[in-house]
Amino acid sequence: MKPIKVGLLGLGTVGTGVVRIVEGHQTDLQSQVGSPIVIEKVLVQNKSKARSISIDPAKLTEDAWDVIHHPDIDVIVEVMGGIETTRTYILEALARGKHVVTANKDLMALHGPEILAAAQENRCDVLYEASVAGGIPIIRTLIEGFSSDRITKIMGIVNGTTNYILTKMSQEGAAYADVLKEAQDLGYAEADPTSDVEGLDAARKMTILATLGFRANVALEDVDVKGISAISREDILYAKRLGYEVKLLGIAERQDDYISVGVQPTMVKTSHPIASVNGVYNAVYVYGEAVGETMFYGPGAGELPTATSVVADLVAVVKNLKLGVNGKQELLAYKEKKLKTDEQIASKYFILLHVADRAGVLAQITQAFAEHEVSLESVVQQPNPNIPEAEIIIITHDASKAAANRVLNSFERMDVVKTVKSVYRVEG
Amino acid sequence: MKPIKVGLLGLGTVGTGVVRIVEGHQTDLQSQVGSPIVIEKVLVQNKSKARSISIDPAKLTEDAWDVIHHPDIDVIVEVMGGIETTRTYILEALARGKHVVTANKDLMALHGPEILAAAQENRCDVLYEASVAGGIPIIRTLIEGFSSDRITKIMGIVNGTTNYILTKMSQEGAAYADVLKEAQDLGYAEADPTSDVEGLDAARKMTILATLGFRANVALEDVDVKGISAISREDILYAKRLGYEVKLLGIAERQDDYISVGVQPTMVKTSHPIASVNGVYNAVYVYGEAVGETMFYGPGAGELPTATSVVADLVAVVKNLKLGVNGKQELLAYKEKKLKTDEQIASKYFILLHVADRAGVLAQITQAFAEHEVSLESVVQQPNPNIPEAEIIIITHDASKAAANRVLNSFERMDVVKTVKSVYRVEG
Repeated sequence: MKPIKVGLLGLGTVGTGVVRIVEGHQTDLQSQVGSPIVIEKVLVQNKSKARSISIDPAKLTEDAWDVIHHPDIDVIVEVMGGIETTRTYILEALARGKHVVTANKDLMALHGPEILAAAQENRCDVLYEASVAGGIPIIRTLIEGFSSDRITKIMGIVNGTTNYILTKMSQEGAAYADVLKEAQDLGYAEADPTSDVEGLDAARKMTILATLGFRANVALEDVDVKGISAISREDILYAKRLGYEVKLLGIAERQDDYISVGVQPTMVKTSHPIASVNGVYNAVYVYGEAVGETMFYGPGAGELPTATSVVADLVAVVKNLKLGVNGKQELLAYKEKKLKTDEQIASKYFILLHVADRAGVLAQITQAFAEHEVSLESVVQQPNPNIPEAEIIIITHDASKAAANRVLNSFERMDVVKTVKSVYRVEG
Repeated sequence: MKPIKVGLLGLGTVGTGVVRIVEGHQTDLQSQVGSPIVIEKVLVQNKSKARSISIDPAKLTEDAWDVIHHPDIDVIVEVMGGIETTRTYILEALARGKHVVTANKDLMALHGPEILAAAQENRCDVLYEASVAGGIPIIRTLIEGFSSDRITKIMGIVNGTTNYILTKMSQEGAAYADVLKEAQDLGYAEADPTSDVEGLDAARKMTILATLGFRANVALEDVDVKGISAISREDILYAKRLGYEVKLLGIAERQDDYISVGVQPTMVKTSHPIASVNGVYNAVYVYGEAVGETMFYGPGAGELPTATSVVADLVAVVKNLKLGVNGKQELLAYKEKKLKTDEQIASKYFILLHVADRAGVLAQITQAFAEHEVSLESVVQQPNPNIPEAEIIIITHDASKAAANRVLNSFERMDVVKTVKSVYRVEG
C-alpha cells in the first residue's frame, strides 16, 4: 500500500479539478488501484495567490524542476498548457522514468510522435485523454473500443466556444459579432478568440483524433482549416429552411488508405445525430466499416469534466505500474500517411449566389456545373427584396473539392454572377 | 509471431461477423497485437448447413469439447447464447486456463459474479463488451473512462426492438400491435417477442451496466421491470403535445450509495439527448458527479457491430497475453449493494385519469395529491369527445415511488375517478 506520488504541473482550472477529484474520490480510487494516490508537489506561477481549494503550502513550488526532479514522484500530470517549455519539461520527466498524463492538445498535436517515441524509449506511459473533448473518453474509444474495426470517418464538434456561438445564432437568429461578445462576457470565449473562432483549436484536436483513428501520423499542417467568423445570419436561416444546422465540424475521412482532414463550417442535416449537439457540448461521430454509425457526447471543457479524464488516465498509469507494464503500448501510427488530393476529397456543397436578374441566367449557371461534371441535387432561384439581384441556392450531389473549385472559379469569369455569397460543405 | 488460436462457440449472426472481421482486418489486427489471430475450431449445430462465409470444414465441429479442450486454443469466443450449458462450457474453459470473450448478456446478468470470480481464480480474462449495446464500447467506458468519477445515473435505450416499435408509433401514429407485426416481418422482433417487449432483455443489460457503474453486484431480481405492451397511441400523442417522447428506458440511480434500477416506459423531454435516439439504435446516457452529462450512441445489435465489440475484446485479451497480465483486472464490485426503498426512489410522474365530468372533481383529485405530499407541476383538465368522462393530465414534481403509489391507491376508493388510464415516469 505504498502511496503513488503525483507531481502536478499547473494549478489553474483543470489542475484545481484534479486536486478536487483525487481528494474527493480517494476511497474509490484506492479501491480500484490498491494504493493511496497522493499529490506530492504542485508547480504554480505564484505561491501566494488565493485559491478555491485548500492545499498544503509546502507542496507548492514556483520551480518546475522541484516537481520534475522530485525523487519520489512516479507520475507527472501536466495541466499547465503551453508548448515549448512544456515539451522540455515532459521530455525531461520521461528521461527520468516518470510517467506523464497531459491535457495538452497543442503539445500533442504538434509534438505527439516525438513525445510518444520518448515514452516508449524510456518505458513510460504518456496518456492524454483530456486533450480532446474534455470529459468524453474518445481517445480510449478509438484506441481500444474500435481496435478491431477500420474507421473511415470521424466528425467532431470539438470546440465548445464555436458551438455555443453557432447554437445561439441558430436558436435566436442573432448575429455572429453579438453572440461572440456575449460569449466573451460569459467567459465561454477568450478576449482574443482567434484560436477558437478561426478553427485552429479544432484543427489541433482533429490532428490527434485522425492519427488515432487512422493509425497514421497526421500533422497539423495536413488539416485544411476554415473558421466561423464569416458565417452570416442569412446562411443559418437558409440552412434551417432547407433542414440543416450550421456546425463547425472537424471531418477526417479515409478511403483506400488515403486520408483527408479538414475543419470547416458545415451544413448538417437535422436528422443527423451530430446536428442536435448544442451549446458548449462536444460530440465525436465515428463511422467504422464494421460498426457503422456511433457518436460520443459530453462536456468538452470545464474544471471537473476535463479533470475526470486526467484522473482516469492517472488510474490507468497506476494500474500499469502495479502490473509492471508501463510503456508497453505499441506506437499506434503503424500506417504510412497518404493524403487525398483535392480531386479525391468529395462532399456535397451548398452554394449561395447573387446573380443578375434576367432571362437565361439559371441556364448559364447550371451549365457551368455540368461542364465541370458536378451534378446538382437541388436548385432554387428566388427573389430577395433586400438586394437588386436574384438569389440562387444550389445543393450539389457529391463532388470533388477540385471540381467544386473549378466551378467557383468559372463564376469569376461570368458577368451574370455578381457574388458567390456562401459556400458550405454539406453532411447527412 | 506464434499465432494466437481462437475457439469459436457458435456460428450464427455474431459468430459469422467475428469470422469476417478477424479475416478481413487481419493485417490491421496483426499490426496491433504483433501476431496472427487464427480461428482454429468452431462449434456449430450442423456441420453441413450452408453458410454465407467460406470456412474450412475441418475447423467445424458439433462437439463443444473439441473446442474447449483443444490444447492449442488460447481464447474461447462464446457467441452461441443460452445460459446453463454455456455457463458449464465457460467455467470449464476457464478451469483449463483459456481466456473468454462473450457476447452473452443473459449469462453475464445471471452468473456474472461467479464467472468473473472463476476467471480471477484461474488468472484468465473474461471480457464481455458485446453483451450490452452491441457496437457501443460502453463497458470499457464505465470501467476505464470513468474510473475516476462517481457515476450517479445511467439511463439506457438498450433494446433496439422496442425502440424501433416506439419510434414508429411516435413518427407514424401507429398502434402497438401493428408496429410489432411489422417489426416481426422485418426480422427486428422475434416470433415470441416477450423478452424484448416486456423489458426483460433491457433489464439484463441494466443489471450489467449498474454493476459496472456503481461497483456493486446488482442482480437481475433487483430490477423493477415494466414493458411496452400497454402503451397506447393516445399516450404517445399526449406525450408529444407536452414535449415528450415515450422511450423504454433502463434507469439506474445512486444516491448516498443507495441504488435503484428499473426498466419502464418513460416520457423523456424532447430536449434531452436520449429523446432523439430513434429506430433500432441504442444509447447509454451516463451522469457522473464530476463529468456531468455524457451519452454514447450506436448500433445495439447486428452481425458486424456486435462482432466489432467481440473482436475488440479479443484484441485486448491478446495484448494482455503478450504482456503476461491476463486475469489481473481486479473485481470491480467492491461496494456493498444497498437498494433504495420505494420511499427513496424519486421521479416526476405523468398520470392520465378519466374522471366524472362534474363540478368539484378537480379539487378532489388535487386534494389527494396534497394529502400524500406530492406536489404538481401541471394539471390539465380537458373534454374528450370519445369518452363520456372528462380527462385529467397531471405531471407531478419529483415524488417518491411510494407516495405516488399511495396517491394511485387512493384513487381506487374515489367514486369520481373512473380509470387511471396511464402512469409514466418522466425524465428531462
